[in-house]
Amino acid sequence: MDTTLRDGAQGEGISLSVEDKLRITAKLDALGVAYVEGGWPGSNPKDVEYFERVQKLPLKHAKVTAFSSTRRPGVTVEEDANIQTLVHAGTKVATIFGKTWDLHVFQALETTLEENLAMIRDTVSYLKKQGLEVIYDAEHFFDGYKSNPPYALETVRAAASAGADWVTLCDTNGGLLPDELSEILGKVKESLDVPLGIHVHNDGDLAVANTLTAVKNGAVMVQGTINGFGERCGNANLCSVIPNLEYKMGFTCLPPGGLALLTEVSHYISELANVTHFSQQPFVGMSAFAHKGGIHVSAVSKNPVTYEHMDPALVGNKRRVLVSELAGLSNLKYKAKELNIDIQFESPESRKIIRQIKELEHMGFQYEGAEASLELLLKKAFGQHQDYFKLESFKILMEKREDDGILSEAMIKLKVGKETVHTAAEGNGPVNALDNALRKALEQFYPEIKAIHLSDYKVRVLDEKDATAATVRVLIETTDQEATWSTVGVSENIIEASWQALSDGITYALYKKYSKEKKAQS
Amino acid sequence: MDTTLRDGAQGEGISLSVEDKLRITAKLDALGVAYVEGGWPGSNPKDVEYFERVQKLPLKHAKVTAFSSTRRPGVTVEEDANIQTLVHAGTKVATIFGKTWDLHVFQALETTLEENLAMIRDTVSYLKKQGLEVIYDAEHFFDGYKSNPPYALETVRAAASAGADWVTLCDTNGGLLPDELSEILGKVKESLDVPLGIHVHNDGDLAVANTLTAVKNGAVMVQGTINGFGERCGNANLCSVIPNLEYKMGFTCLPPGGLALLTEVSHYISELANVTHFSQQPFVGMSAFAHKGGIHVSAVSKNPVTYEHMDPALVGNKRRVLVSELAGLSNLKYKAKELNIDIQFESPESRKIIRQIKELEHMGFQYEGAEASLELLLKKAFGQHQDYFKLESFKILMEKREDDGILSEAMIKLKVGKETVHTAAEGNGPVNALDNALRKALEQFYPEIKAIHLSDYKVRVLDEKDATAATVRVLIETTDQEATWSTVGVSENIIEASWQALSDGITYALYKKYSKEKKAQS
Repeated sequence: MDTTLRDGAQGEGISLSVEDKLRITAKLDALGVAYVEGGWPGSNPKDVEYFERVQKLPLKHAKVTAFSSTRRPGVTVEEDANIQTLVHAGTKVATIFGKTWDLHVFQALETTLEENLAMIRDTVSYLKKQGLEVIYDAEHFFDGYKSNPPYALETVRAAASAGADWVTLCDTNGGLLPDELSEILGKVKESLDVPLGIHVHNDGDLAVANTLTAVKNGAVMVQGTINGFGERCGNANLCSVIPNLEYKMGFTCLPPGGLALLTEVSHYISELANVTHFSQQPFVGMSAFAHKGGIHVSAVSKNPVTYEHMDPALVGNKRRVLVSELAGLSNLKYKAKELNIDIQFESPESRKIIRQIKELEHMGFQYEGAEASLELLLKKAFGQHQDYFKLESFKILMEKREDDGILSEAMIKLKVGKETVHTAAEGNGPVNALDNALRKALEQFYPEIKAIHLSDYKVRVLDEKDATAATVRVLIETTDQEATWSTVGVSENIIEASWQALSDGITYALYKKYSKEKKAQS
Repeated sequence: MDTTLRDGAQGEGISLSVEDKLRITAKLDALGVAYVEGGWPGSNPKDVEYFERVQKLPLKHAKVTAFSSTRRPGVTVEEDANIQTLVHAGTKVATIFGKTWDLHVFQALETTLEENLAMIRDTVSYLKKQGLEVIYDAEHFFDGYKSNPPYALETVRAAASAGADWVTLCDTNGGLLPDELSEILGKVKESLDVPLGIHVHNDGDLAVANTLTAVKNGAVMVQGTINGFGERCGNANLCSVIPNLEYKMGFTCLPPGGLALLTEVSHYISELANVTHFSQQPFVGMSAFAHKGGIHVSAVSKNPVTYEHMDPALVGNKRRVLVSELAGLSNLKYKAKELNIDIQFESPESRKIIRQIKELEHMGFQYEGAEASLELLLKKAFGQHQDYFKLESFKILMEKREDDGILSEAMIKLKVGKETVHTAAEGNGPVNALDNALRKALEQFYPEIKAIHLSDYKVRVLDEKDATAATVRVLIETTDQEATWSTVGVSENIIEASWQALSDGITYALYKKYSKEKKAQS
C-alpha cells in the first residue's frame, strides 16, 4: 500500500496538485501497487476533488483508499463530518486511524480510554455496514504498547471485532528498533487473528529494517511511500522495501515486470513532487550503481558481482563508471564502450584524447558528474560531432544603483547554419540572463528547446585560497520529459564556466534528438 | 572510526582539498571520534600531503590512520611501494584491507588462495614490527563467507595470528540482511579471539540496521562516515549510528557532550564537501524534527513526545514548526552575549531585530558560517554602527567574442564621507572585477585595505530546482594578518549576493580597526 499521496505529501517541501496526484496514481497502478492511499478528503477540498476525478481513471491493479480518523469524541458517526466526507469519497476501501497510546487519548483527544474504544468500534462497524473494505491504522501502536500493553491490545481488538479487514501497526514517531518491533509483534499475533499491516517512519534511520522485520514476522501489508517521502524523516521507502522483499527475501509484492519499473517510477514521482532526487538512494539513485575507485572499476569490468550486490537492470537502474581523479584508464575504456565509441587505446589519437582529458581534469573539469560533456568531448575527438550553433559573441551588463536590486541583461549573437541571430534577454542574474538569451536565439531553429529546462546549477570554487580570482567549476543538469543529463564548465571566470556548461547542455539535447532521428531514418 | 576522508571521499560528487581534509579532521576530533581514517597515501599525492600536515594538528581524541591494501602478489612487503608509502605516512595506526572472497582472489587479484593468505600475514606482521597499531579490514567478508566459509575464516585468522589489533568485517557490496549478518558474526566469534569491527555499505538501505545488529552481537568498532558519504549508496551513516547506539541502546561512543555536537558536525562537513545537506536525514536533517501536519503541530505544542521520538537538543538539532517559524531566539540570545551586545529581549527594538533576522534566515541567510555579518547586523540594529563608505552605483560589463576568454570590467561610484570616488578595474570574472574596483576606490581613504584579502569564496545554490534563476548564497572569508572573518550575502542574483558579502567583509575590517583605535584612545 502506497501512501505517497497522503502521508508522503506531509513531507516538508512537498505540495502536489490534483493533476499531479492523478498522474501519480496512474503511475503507481502501472507499477502494480495493490492499494493507493489517495488523501484525506475530510481535511481539504483538493482531496475531495481528487477522489471525484480518480473514479474515472482506468486502474488495473490499484484499489484507491481514502483516509480519515475515527469519529470525534462525543458525537455519533452520522454526525461526524469527516466520516461523512470519507463515505462520499466513493472509494471501495477506507483507511481509518485511531489512537492506541493512552497518553494521546488523554492529551491529544482529551477523552477517556473507554470513549476511544467506542470511537474505534463505531467507526469501523459503520464503514463495514456501508460495504467498504476497512484498513485500521493503529497510530503509535508501538509507543502505546510500551506505555500500556493491555490497553494497546484492546484498541486493535476493538477494530478487529468491529470487522476491520486489516489492522496496521504504526510506528508513527519512527524511533522503534527492529528487536522491539519483533517482540511486540509476537504479542499481537497471540491475541489477534486478522491480517496485519506495518507502517513505520524513518526517524531512527531504520524504517526499511523495521518493515522487513515485520514482514518476516508475519505482517502481510506494507505501508510506505515512494522515495520515503513523509513527515519529518519520512515513511518507509517502498523503493528499498520492495526490492529487498522480492529480490533478497523471496516475497512477491508486485505483478511480473513491476520491479524493473521501480527506478523510473521513483524519478517520475520526484519530478512531479519537485524534489531533487537523492542520488545516493539505494537501488534507484543515480549513484546506486556508480563506481568511482579505480580498484572497483577495474574489478567490475572483469565481473560486476565483485562490487555490486545485484544486477541494476532488475530494478531498472544502470551501472555507471565515473571518470574521476581516483580512477584510472579502465574507467575511460569502460565509458567509451558504453557510449559506443570505438577507441583503440593504443592509437596515437586515443593517447591524445586521454592526455587531453587528464589535462582538463587537472584544470578542474570533473566528468564524473558530467557525463554528457564527456560524451560530447569523446565524439568531438573522434570526429563524430556536429555543431548545432556557433557563438559569435555575447555581452552581459549588470547595473546597480544604491540600494536597488541589480538589472542583468545579456545580448547574444549566434550563427545557426548560414543564418545569424542576434537577440537579448533579461534574467535574475548574469547566468540566467545568458541562458534566457541563448534559448531565445535558438528556439526559432530548434523549437524542441522549449521542452527542456535547467534542473540543477552547482558552483564549486576549486582553489579557495585565491577567493574571487579562483578557478570555478559549474555543473549544470538539463532535463526534458524523458531524461536528465549533466554538463560541466571550468574557468577562472564564473560566466565563462557557466557558458561552457550551458552550451554543452543544449548541444547535448540537440545531439540526442537529431542523432536519434538519423538512426530512425537509416 | 570515521572514514569520511577515505571511503566517504569515494562518493560521487565529493572532492576534498587537503585544506578541507585537515579542517574535517579537527572537527571530527572535536566531536570525539576515536579513529579518523585520513586517506590512502599510496593512491594519490594529495593524501601524502595530508598525512604530512596532519601531524602538526593538535588532536585531543582522534588517532589518525592511513589506509592501504595488503602487499601485491609476488612481491615482498619491502618492495611494495604502497606499503612503503603507508609506513612513511607517519601515523601510529594503519588500516589494511585484504581479500576474503575467493572469487576476488581469482578474478581481481589473479592469484592463488594460498598467496592471498601470505599477503595478509606478511603485511600485518611487517606493520606490527614497525610498531604500528593495525586494523585489518576483511573486504567482502560476508560475501566471501557465503561463497567459501572455511577460507573466509582462514583469512581473518591469518590477520589475527599475524598480530592485527582489530579485525573488521566488511559488507563491501552493501547487500547484506541483518539476519545473515548476525548468523555469520556468530560463526566468526566461535573461531576468532580479537576485537571485531563492522564496516557496511548502504546498498540495501540497511547499513544502520546492520551496524546496530553487529554491535549488539559483539562488534566493538564501528566504521562509518558522516552523512553516510561513500561509494554508490554510501557507508553506514555515523550521524544515525551514534544516536541509536548512545540514546536508544545505551552504548557509549563519544566523550560527554559529543552527541550534542552531531548536527553541527554533519552540516559543517556537508558544507566543506559542497554537498547539499539531505533535509530528511534522520536525527540531524533540517526536517528531522519539523512538523507540518496540523494534528501533529497541535499535539506537539501540548507535549513534544506525542510526535517526537526524542528531544532534538540531544543531537544538537531543533524542533521546527512549518506553519509558523518558531526557532532561533535562544541562539540569538547566546550570540549577542558572546558578542557583548546588550540586548533587552523584551524591548520593541529587540523584537524588531529578531523579526528581521527570522525573515533573513527564511530568505536563506545563514549566520552560522558568517558571524561577522551577524555582528554588523546587530550593531546596526542597536545603533552602534558606522558607515565607512556608501555605494552610489556600480556597473559590470562582460564581453566574449567567439572562442576568446571573457573580458570583465567593473565601474564603481562610492561616497566616502563627503567625497565621491569613481573608478574602474578589470578582473578574472565579475566578482573579482567588482572586488578590485571596490578596493581601488577605498585604498586612498583607508590604506590598511592593502593588507586584507579575500581568502575564501563559496557559492551555494539554495533551491536547485530553479537552476540559474534560483536563490544563491555567497559566503566570503576575509583575512588580515591577525584574523579571519566570514560574511554572507543572499540573492537571486549571484552578483548582488557577492556584493553584500564583499562589502560586509570590508566594512567589518574597517569596523575592527577603527573601533579598536577608538577604544585605545578612550
